[in-house]
Amino acid sequence: MRLAVIPGDGIGPEVIAEALKVLGEVVPAAEITRYDLGAARWHATGELLPESVLGELRQHDAILLGAVGDPSVPSGILERGLLLRLRFELDHHVNLRPARLYPGVRSPLADPPEIDMVVVREGTEGPYAGNGGLLRKDTPHEIATEVSINTSFGVERVVRDAFARAANRPRRHLTLVHKTNVLTHAGSLWSRVVEEVSLQHPDVTVAYQHVDAATIHLVTDPGRYDVIVTDNLFGDILTDLAAAVTGGIGLAASGNMDVTRRNPSMFEPVHGSAPDIAGQGIADPTAAVLSVALLLDHLGEHESARRIEASVAFDLATRDHQSPGATYAIGDRLAALVSSNVRTG
Amino acid sequence: MRLAVIPGDGIGPEVIAEALKVLGEVVPAAEITRYDLGAARWHATGELLPESVLGELRQHDAILLGAVGDPSVPSGILERGLLLRLRFELDHHVNLRPARLYPGVRSPLADPPEIDMVVVREGTEGPYAGNGGLLRKDTPHEIATEVSINTSFGVERVVRDAFARAANRPRRHLTLVHKTNVLTHAGSLWSRVVEEVSLQHPDVTVAYQHVDAATIHLVTDPGRYDVIVTDNLFGDILTDLAAAVTGGIGLAASGNMDVTRRNPSMFEPVHGSAPDIAGQGIADPTAAVLSVALLLDHLGEHESARRIEASVAFDLATRDHQSPGATYAIGDRLAALVSSNVRTG
Ligand SMILES: CC(C)[C@H](C(=O)O)[C@@H](O)C(=O)O
Ligand SMILES: CC(C)[C@H](C(=O)O)[C@@H](O)C(=O)O
Repeated sequence: MRLAVIPGDGIGPEVIAEALKVLGEVVPAAEITRYDLGAARWHATGELLPESVLGELRQHDAILLGAVGDPSVPSGILERGLLLRLRFELDHHVNLRPARLYPGVRSPLADPPEIDMVVVREGTEGPYAGNGGLLRKDTPHEIATEVSINTSFGVERVVRDAFARAANRPRRHLTLVHKTNVLTHAGSLWSRVVEEVSLQHPDVTVAYQHVDAATIHLVTDPGRYDVIVTDNLFGDILTDLAAAVTGGIGLAASGNMDVTRRNPSMFEPVHGSAPDIAGQGIADPTAAVLSVALLLDHLGEHESARRIEASVAFDLATRDHQSPGATYAIGDRLAALVSSNVRTG
Repeated sequence: MRLAVIPGDGIGPEVIAEALKVLGEVVPAAEITRYDLGAARWHATGELLPESVLGELRQHDAILLGAVGDPSVPSGILERGLLLRLRFELDHHVNLRPARLYPGVRSPLADPPEIDMVVVREGTEGPYAGNGGLLRKDTPHEIATEVSINTSFGVERVVRDAFARAANRPRRHLTLVHKTNVLTHAGSLWSRVVEEVSLQHPDVTVAYQHVDAATIHLVTDPGRYDVIVTDNLFGDILTDLAAAVTGGIGLAASGNMDVTRRNPSMFEPVHGSAPDIAGQGIADPTAAVLSVALLLDHLGEHESARRIEASVAFDLATRDHQSPGATYAIGDRLAALVSSNVRTG
């Protein structure tokens, strides 16, 4: 197993160290190459993602990423030039984001139901396409545009993936989230594709919700969701909210996947670089560890993935959530649990 | 006071009847003209908003709208052809949406703080501009686009309005919500305008949050918000979520305002037509009643607006939230409270 690791910015390196500790317990022979992409490299050299590095990354089975973003870098530079460039160059069309309320974890909701959903977020088009511009900048007649681009090719492949996932889950339910009553063109395409693909999955029940209504139900009735399929921007918003109601982005893992396997997929915690707590050794590495489980699942190492998930579930059920311990201590605990092959549920 | 009333679809007519009952207590001399726009008219005549009706609407001091939308009409027809057309034709650039957690109201949050915020949502541009299209429809090469259009003219006027509102509130705090790290063009314009206008408001503290992070804080720390200013689509999403955490869209009022007063402003509950409960007489008219208070404020009838708000606050603090009563009964209660000039706080 050849893995590229991009620790990145802020708490990225801190949580990645623990994720690798846990990975070492299940795949001790993994070959790991580190890449120093991120804010520091940009400051030092002006480089974001050199072609040569991109070429090297392509030679790996998967990529593990910590976080990208730093207050010392103008907004958008690292995000568009590094993180989104990786997602687009490596055709990460399925952005997979599970949200599960683990036993023992406190939700900000008063009366949380069982929550176990997965958001299949489109990852290579929509409003993230980078299409748009500024006209008459800095004049009273300035116009800024952002173009959401949606193709039947791009929409169909994520919708197919979402249906396949739904068909493999006990509840077999899929919700399309969009804003078809306002974004009528993109909404029409998404709705038609979902309708067409649903014909091949009579076993999956299908629902539709407007994105605004979905945010309401994510706080009043999150248990209703099984698989959500949605566009890049709505997926960005919904997955942060879904993470919040299931205990916070400190626990939320994600996979940026090319499900055709032509390019290596990239796994990363949803939390980002969290500059406010960086360098203090207090970041929770759980989301990074769960991202390793997603990575292993993607590479077919399901048994190892289940061991990691079971260890996280055990730790979350038993940890003192007021003082869960330092970053390294949580990593040590999870590594020990994985090595002792703890099982839950 | 010449008011145009559009009861509209679903529960619209039911809640509007109660809103007018309450209005009658404070402005008995209001001259009211009803317009039967909505699903029924469209089915009967194919008309959505005839020019002649639009011309008549312009002759009024304000418009009170119930709800627009019906499952029997394809998605987008009524929304774009009637509701959004009214907002755009009448230049409703400030979409004002207060979110307050009233004493006695149950939030879905476990530990809700005091919440008293107002979202100033841009109402006439952004992704709602209706710009975009379909190319190669129904082929494997279909492309659907949606263009978000943002002008310095359009952004500046809502940002100015938001700062003016913030300056008049005790906390004097304004949060710009956008996604500047991805939507770099529109994000750049919004950020620059906020920065410029902030120079004229040294008394207002300014914060920025990405829309995804804002959804997290709306459930983990909603007390932090005072005034939020944001674009049309983010505002749509955030205001439904803000309504949810403050007890539901059954209580959320809104104003679609042309603050220059060149066109009549339009006031409406956020909840929409709720076809699932329409015709049963069980819809909560409180949001419609609070929309009347916003309408009166806009027309300078502040004393009457305060009376209505105080009555709603009193009713919410004392009502049995399990069985708040039928639509008409809540309306009767609120009308009686207004007529007895109840005061709270
Ligand atoms: C950092 C940012 C570009 C990114 C996104 O918007 O996709 C992040 O919010 C995420 O969800 O992974
Ligand atoms: C019905 C729909 C067009 C509308 C919107 O998106 O603005 C509604 O959701 C709202 O918030 O008033």
